[in-house]
Amino acid sequence: MTEKELLIEEAKPSEAAAIEIFLKEVISETDFIVMPDIDFSTSLLHDSLACSFDRYNSICLVAKLDNELIGLLNVSSSDELAVNHIGDVFIVVKKQYWGNGIGHYLFELMCDWAEHNEMIKRLELTVQSRNQKAIQLYKDFGFEIEGIKRAAIQISSECYLDVMMMSKMIGI
Amino acid sequence: MTEKELLIEEAKPSEAAAIEIFLKEVISETDFIVMPDIDFSTSLLHDSLACSFDRYNSICLVAKLDNELIGLLNVSSSDELAVNHIGDVFIVVKKQYWGNGIGHYLFELMCDWAEHNEMIKRLELTVQSRNQKAIQLYKDFGFEIEGIKRAAIQISSECYLDVMMMSKMIGI
Repeated sequence: MTEKELLIEEAKPSEAAAIEIFLKEVISETDFIVMPDIDFSTSLLHDSLACSFDRYNSICLVAKLDNELIGLLNVSSSDELAVNHIGDVFIVVKKQYWGNGIGHYLFELMCDWAEHNEMIKRLELTVQSRNQKAIQLYKDFGFEIEGIKRAAIQISSECYLDVMMMSKMIGI
Repeated sequence: MTEKELLIEEAKPSEAAAIEIFLKEVISETDFIVMPDIDFSTSLLHDSLACSFDRYNSICLVAKLDNELIGLLNVSSSDELAVNHIGDVFIVVKKQYWGNGIGHYLFELMCDWAEHNEMIKRLELTVQSRNQKAIQLYKDFGFEIEGIKRAAIQISSECYLDVMMMSKMIGI
């Protein structure tokens, strides 16, 4: 890791195609992420990234190692008044770079962004209860467990996974 | 109530226009429901009702008093394998009929439907923490509190509401 340069920056809409390939790859290499109903087409990702760019309460950060995409942290928010204070956090890091602090760097930047954002008052995320390393990362940044959704993911007709709901309040 | 006939039945796609009017009215008369991002257009409701009709793990029940729509209970589900065992419950009753057991009847029928449905293993819902009567109704039907989302609804820049997450396991 020491010889390569790690860069974390806001994702640009023009990177949608590369991000689509990246997401499909990282999600296929882990059982910790189950994303039904999510369409990763380039055009939808482009629109989503453009929306993040324009929307004050959303952000999409990418981590690059010598220009190779190795991590992504997205905070999506609504523009509806009742919930526009909530940032929904999603993070992925390429498996071969797990344990190198990439998630830590992404979370550090994101939390700093959120703390200086006048709209964001609540960050929330869900994580599989068995993903202890991720849960520890989120706790390190002040996220607290709000509840556990029992059997929130079906692996087979006899195997279900629990999902933790975590959140962090910002200035309230 | 005794002189009128209460009928609970599955909503038909052809009732979309009447349901649109009903939902707009009941949601405007209560502070217990905040529904950003939801589009209640007749065509979308029609498609949603048609989908519920066709989909084995979804149902939309309507309560009618002498043909007047006074309550609705919807269970929406995904067709994705990882989450198609989850039914997301939403209920509304016209304010003037609160306290007459309409919610109880709707829940009784829905829970009976869920217990005989081979796909549904988890029913879930969210409810404002201040809506104690609704929480008691859900508890009466075996729903348990899984967590509390702090400040999940923004009323003003200084007032936020907590939301409870409740669920009921079916046969697992």
